[in-house]
Amino acid sequence: MKYVYAFEEGSKEQKYLLGGKGANLAEMTNLGLPVPPGFTISTDACNAYLAAGGNLPDGLLDEVAAALQALEAKMGKRLGDDVDPLLVSVRSGAPFSMPGMMDTVLNLGLNDVSVGGLAKQTSNERFALDSYRRFVQMFGRIVLDIPGDAFEEALTALREQRGVESDTDLDADDLRGLVETFKGIVREKAGVEFPQDPQEQLRHAIEAVFRSWNGKRARDYRKLEAIPDDLGTAVNVQTMVFGNKGDDSGTGVAFTRDPATGENRPYGDFLANAQGEDVVAGIRVTEHLDAMGAHFPEPQRQLLDIMNRLEQHYRDMCDIEFTIEQGRLFILQTRVGKRTAAAALRMATDMANEGLVDKREAVLRVQPAQLDQLLHPQFDPDAKYDAVAKGLNASPGAAVGKVYFTADDAEAKHEAGERVILVRPETSPDDLHGMIAAEGILTSRGGLVSHAAVVARGMGKPAICGAEAIRIDLKAKQFRVGDTVVAEGDVISINGSTGEVVIGEVPVIVPEPTGPFQTLLQWADEFRRLGVRTNADLPEDAAKAREFGAEGIGLCRTEHMFLGDRLPIVQRMILAETDEEELAALQQLEQLQKSDFIGIFEAMDGLPVTIRLLDPPLHEFLPDVEELLVQDAKGELDDAGRRLLHAAEQWREVNPMLGTRGCRLGIIKPGLYRMQVRAIIEAAIERKQRGGDPHVEIMIPLVVTEPELALLVDWVREEAAAASPDNGVDYLVGTMVETPRAAIAAREIAEAAEFFSFGTNDLTQMTFGFSRDDVEGRFMPRYLELGLLAANPFETIDTEGVGRLVRWGVEGGRATRPDIKLGICGEHGGDPASVRFCHEVGLDYVSCSPYRVPIARLAAAHASLGESGPSGTA
Amino acid sequence: MKYVYAFEEGSKEQKYLLGGKGANLAEMTNLGLPVPPGFTISTDACNAYLAAGGNLPDGLLDEVAAALQALEAKMGKRLGDDVDPLLVSVRSGAPFSMPGMMDTVLNLGLNDVSVGGLAKQTSNERFALDSYRRFVQMFGRIVLDIPGDAFEEALTALREQRGVESDTDLDADDLRGLVETFKGIVREKAGVEFPQDPQEQLRHAIEAVFRSWNGKRARDYRKLEAIPDDLGTAVNVQTMVFGNKGDDSGTGVAFTRDPATGENRPYGDFLANAQGEDVVAGIRVTEHLDAMGAHFPEPQRQLLDIMNRLEQHYRDMCDIEFTIEQGRLFILQTRVGKRTAAAALRMATDMANEGLVDKREAVLRVQPAQLDQLLHPQFDPDAKYDAVAKGLNASPGAAVGKVYFTADDAEAKHEAGERVILVRPETSPDDLHGMIAAEGILTSRGGLVSHAAVVARGMGKPAICGAEAIRIDLKAKQFRVGDTVVAEGDVISINGSTGEVVIGEVPVIVPEPTGPFQTLLQWADEFRRLGVRTNADLPEDAAKAREFGAEGIGLCRTEHMFLGDRLPIVQRMILAETDEEELAALQQLEQLQKSDFIGIFEAMDGLPVTIRLLDPPLHEFLPDVEELLVQDAKGELDDAGRRLLHAAEQWREVNPMLGTRGCRLGIIKPGLYRMQVRAIIEAAIERKQRGGDPHVEIMIPLVVTEPELALLVDWVREEAAAASPDNGVDYLVGTMVETPRAAIAAREIAEAAEFFSFGTNDLTQMTFGFSRDDVEGRFMPRYLELGLLAANPFETIDTEGVGRLVRWGVEGGRATRPDIKLGICGEHGGDPASVRFCHEVGLDYVSCSPYRVPIARLAAAHASLGESGPSGTA
Repeated sequence: MKYVYAFEEGSKEQKYLLGGKGANLAEMTNLGLPVPPGFTISTDACNAYLAAGGNLPDGLLDEVAAALQALEAKMGKRLGDDVDPLLVSVRSGAPFSMPGMMDTVLNLGLNDVSVGGLAKQTSNERFALDSYRRFVQMFGRIVLDIPGDAFEEALTALREQRGVESDTDLDADDLRGLVETFKGIVREKAGVEFPQDPQEQLRHAIEAVFRSWNGKRARDYRKLEAIPDDLGTAVNVQTMVFGNKGDDSGTGVAFTRDPATGENRPYGDFLANAQGEDVVAGIRVTEHLDAMGAHFPEPQRQLLDIMNRLEQHYRDMCDIEFTIEQGRLFILQTRVGKRTAAAALRMATDMANEGLVDKREAVLRVQPAQLDQLLHPQFDPDAKYDAVAKGLNASPGAAVGKVYFTADDAEAKHEAGERVILVRPETSPDDLHGMIAAEGILTSRGGLVSHAAVVARGMGKPAICGAEAIRIDLKAKQFRVGDTVVAEGDVISINGSTGEVVIGEVPVIVPEPTGPFQTLLQWADEFRRLGVRTNADLPEDAAKAREFGAEGIGLCRTEHMFLGDRLPIVQRMILAETDEEELAALQQLEQLQKSDFIGIFEAMDGLPVTIRLLDPPLHEFLPDVEELLVQDAKGELDDAGRRLLHAAEQWREVNPMLGTRGCRLGIIKPGLYRMQVRAIIEAAIERKQRGGDPHVEIMIPLVVTEPELALLVDWVREEAAAASPDNGVDYLVGTMVETPRAAIAAREIAEAAEFFSFGTNDLTQMTFGFSRDDVEGRFMPRYLELGLLAANPFETIDTEGVGRLVRWGVEGGRATRPDIKLGICGEHGGDPASVRFCHEVGLDYVSCSPYRVPIARLAAAHASLGESGPSGTA
Repeated sequence: MKYVYAFEEGSKEQKYLLGGKGANLAEMTNLGLPVPPGFTISTDACNAYLAAGGNLPDGLLDEVAAALQALEAKMGKRLGDDVDPLLVSVRSGAPFSMPGMMDTVLNLGLNDVSVGGLAKQTSNERFALDSYRRFVQMFGRIVLDIPGDAFEEALTALREQRGVESDTDLDADDLRGLVETFKGIVREKAGVEFPQDPQEQLRHAIEAVFRSWNGKRARDYRKLEAIPDDLGTAVNVQTMVFGNKGDDSGTGVAFTRDPATGENRPYGDFLANAQGEDVVAGIRVTEHLDAMGAHFPEPQRQLLDIMNRLEQHYRDMCDIEFTIEQGRLFILQTRVGKRTAAAALRMATDMANEGLVDKREAVLRVQPAQLDQLLHPQFDPDAKYDAVAKGLNASPGAAVGKVYFTADDAEAKHEAGERVILVRPETSPDDLHGMIAAEGILTSRGGLVSHAAVVARGMGKPAICGAEAIRIDLKAKQFRVGDTVVAEGDVISINGSTGEVVIGEVPVIVPEPTGPFQTLLQWADEFRRLGVRTNADLPEDAAKAREFGAEGIGLCRTEHMFLGDRLPIVQRMILAETDEEELAALQQLEQLQKSDFIGIFEAMDGLPVTIRLLDPPLHEFLPDVEELLVQDAKGELDDAGRRLLHAAEQWREVNPMLGTRGCRLGIIKPGLYRMQVRAIIEAAIERKQRGGDPHVEIMIPLVVTEPELALLVDWVREEAAAASPDNGVDYLVGTMVETPRAAIAAREIAEAAEFFSFGTNDLTQMTFGFSRDDVEGRFMPRYLELGLLAANPFETIDTEGVGRLVRWGVEGGRATRPDIKLGICGEHGGDPASVRFCHEVGLDYVSCSPYRVPIARLAAAHASLGESGPSGTA
């Protein structure tokens, strides 16, 4: 097996073998772009190494040695040479981009001897020594696992001793001493001498990169992005070029289009006399790409030309790292760039309009989950507020939450149910879990391509970076902005779209996306087979969903119609001691329900509306037993209160989820369902009389056997016939499939059902035996952490368990009734991976909350187009 | 299609066509026994009649006419004749015995003309008129649906008017008037004239019998006995013979062996000058068969001879109805007789020993459910009590409950959770639902073959009949015995084995059956494939189960070991604020658990013991939140109490069934399971050191995914290796399959499990979404009544839903691990129908409560022997 490939040997198609970075380096090399030469060690080698418990596979070192020799020959330099030493970078590169998640070692090849060669070659001893100390520091941290603080503290101490502000003010002698100090730290902390042999340095660095694939940060990131754990990472060994050789050098990151807005213009950040990590870390304030021309006119022209070539070649927006070494431009890496949802939409539609891609590809270019960003809350434009600071608009959307200053605190408070804003000077991959937990992120340092910004955009979370007006005191757990002190737990609001930071809570609204959003979704509609409906209980929600493209209502719950000012009537019904009392209450409810249904039918005129008959247990309409008991103990309960207490005790249940609700209640309280059916049919008649076009679907919840459903369907037909004697209202009667038994017995149940709607929320609860109220806060986090569940089954459908029941339900239903209508109305209907499953399993439609309708439309199109694999596009 | 068969045309094999009674009448006719001639209308005719909505099938009346003509020719008599009229009985006869459930009409053929003929032929006008009034009464009640009270009241009024005690004191004139009175009642209540045309009488009677198949009593009985609804009933038309023609006549019921004890001696009841219904109704006190010889020496000799022939012919105990008409013996019907469980066992083993049947047949002769009778509670022999009355020991076993006087009350109170004794003067088929609901039955009238006795024995319920010392006042809802008044709701105890009635509660114990019981079960063991284990948590239960033949423990729950005097330690563990506190509590528990396990291993030495790690949620070990809240509201809670309240609130769950319990708790509280595993392994080591032979199986509850189980199995192996460093203890690790997902994902889960135990209680709860605590009292009765469920799925496994999951679990488990051990430990393990399912699906064993072990052993043998169909044996 061949493990090592020179850049000339690969292509961009080989990302699984060479990693994304390696494949793209090979592609650019073959395009003739100025890529510093090098070679790639394949992911196979990494996987072999990890499988062998951390032993390099046979033959690998020989191949590396041969590749290195070839590189040395090409460059006319030798690793460790005392006259003209070759220096290399060693970088991870996985098949899917995992920014900052894994390790990189720069300046490899420097030692006590070659540092002199570098000094001679560059005629810059200070530069050579600075490179050496950086290498020792990086090697110590990455390869030898020495905490970075040890080196930073020594550096700070030296600056203070010399009375200088910046590292650039340290002279060669300072740095020479620092190298020795750093080697001492290595000796002390790692118990080994810093290795002088460049071959040994290289071997250690390769192993460190391999190991970093299984680091906690990397594993967390892969879980978040659904990247398989068995891909492994490649390692790229590339000739070093230096952006920090003086004022004729520099480094930067460029995007062929604006990754935040999608605008078709070159975009990027640049730092003179710096190495790449300085840009990404966000420690120094960068210049915009436009400003680069002033210092580097020719490299800028050349860069813009290369950017254009790359975009045409990749037919997508590219993200490029470049370095100018003493006036000469090098391209260090490229990849298809990450982008905000808005940018993704704009780029996709623009590129299709430009003819760069076709509609199909444009649709596939936008990940369904990304749309969520556009549907995120924004500050209400009518709200009055004063921004106390303005940072970079690093990731769009608005968030409100309590301030916490460490990732651990943010995570803990989030798990305790708080909405959290994570506030950090800057973020690092170590903060990932806190960022996942937070509603939004605020940093006082860093730019638009800083870690915080890149990760937040990827997550679709609002973020503001580089808000320099904010002075963070980590020890005191507070920040100061002007005269105001904001302590841990105080509420702030951030607007990631504008960079505004506000003390206190700002009202938020959800935007209505237009333009590219509408265009792309219309294109998506051309490709999808699955229908998309919405779950809506109110006319205004139905109208909103219809704007978002919903093709009907898949689930209209009737229980909200029993709350609010109707609650006293419902309680009269429950407390009724005679049939007459019960009937009177039901008749009152019938009139109210009828007007509810008229509103819903109006909002969804011409489209199907699935109305679920009452589902919750009756005790949900009664006061809490405990409160009443406590009031009673205190002597505060009057006769009416005691009647309520009696009823609440009578109807309470040990496991309400598995109790007397749904059609079970319908069967023991027949007046209830009959009333609802009359109200539905009468509402439909009234709509028709007013020229409307109601499409009625009556849904019976919680069915377990066919005779049960058949009995209720009889009742429905009786009431409907009575309410509409001329049979003027067409309607369907069907059932939720939400108990495991209903899915198993679908073949029989379909005898009585004209449609099935899979209620995957309850189906998941019963299939796992997971009460959502009890498990999500208690053991689910631990289960996800330990990998005992692949994902939260309430978010993404558990295809191996619940999914098999759905599949059986579909097969059984169609076997009995080939034209049965099949849909899903659990929350999974708005989750892209679950939508794909629904497509594959052959459902007719999904139904989801109004704001998820666009996501479902796009996900359904992706499913039709056979898109698969993780969400990365490179 | 032929619908009508003369008795000469049939045989005992044709019970589905001719009904049990018709098939046996045919058999006896062909054996040459003195059976009054007649013919049978087939069940096909009944089914055709019912399917046509109550229209007799074409050609049936012609066939009946032809058969009748043949019968008239044979008897030399004519229906309705004024000189020598033929009279016939019209009796139902279903394929399975349904005693008293359907209708019978006697004396058919009498009218204003033929009554004179009968008087002439018998020279007994009084007899003829009495027969006529009985016929009018029966026809009115059965065929015309007139309430029987109307006739009884007229009869009572006449007796009072004449000042006589008994009907036999009424003279011919009285009866002539009564006939007219009865015809007036028919005219008034049914709005028709009593039909004088015998053909019309016959047609109506046939239809009435057909209709009675779908009467409520019959349907209830079929549900109880699991007899299919589509079998239909045959109708037997048979020449009447009269046991009430004077002192040279009589009637009786005989059994070839004692149906209560199984003793091999003729047994029965006899009444001189009476018709059959007088014996069955239990209105008059009967004589024993032995006493018959005094009056009827030759018929008695002839009867004993016939009984002997029938038993040899049927190779089983026969139940015979006979009549002596003016000194001549007739056999009216025979069937394989019902018997108590004790009698069934004794007869089966006796007959096998006598060579009448083989062992296989002997085993099949005893229904597993019958054994329950032998395992029913009996009065504790050491208990002191005074019986206030003694009735007939009609059905064995003891019962304690509150007294109710109507079937409706008994049913209602039973559903409300009370234990009920139904007290009636006598019972009728209308009381069936109350008998089903009751723990036991007490009547003040009737004998050992009265309705109450027969039905109670069939149900295996204790019953005392004919306790004449008891004076029942139905209106006042009380009974008086001596000076004592027992009101509705008062508690009494009855001993159906002795006939003793006791006021108040007598302690009860369960007997240890021996003799035929042991013999038959040993024979059963030779045939069964399924192993039978027990569910036992305590050494004494384990020992009891072992006596009953348990081959190990299938489920040892460890939660009881956390209760009682250990509760404070468990609470210390839950309330622990430091790891040290928790550990200290766990160590204390470990020592206690260890001694528990030593006891269990000792009791089951040499047999497998499956120990389930802790299953219930932690709040079950804390006080009730509500009680604490109420105490707190009243200011009664101290600091310790408030800590408990806090913990109880923290651990409480909305749906505990689907919450943090089982292995979920194991995972978030790792110390708990590790402690239990150490205690188990250390107990096994100690047993081995003392020469014992423990077979340890450690069971992890509530698993849903393979990684979850794999993690816990790792922990188990770690702790076991630490506790037993020399690997001296062999053990298996497996899991409960009790969530639908575990069954669905069995193929994966079997990777980590050496055995599966199907926990069908929870599996049923989750598959149906039925919380047993909430549904059995609330909607289950209604569901069963409406036929929405075929049976209570917690009693008999739901083969179409839960059963399919079990089947998939078995297939998945064996696919991955062919030698996986498979068992069931839900309550279904002791239900015969469920045991049959377990056999068919290929489980290795069932596990059930100790007192169900014998039932499971026999049921497993029946399953192996391929016995199927309802429980009737005739």
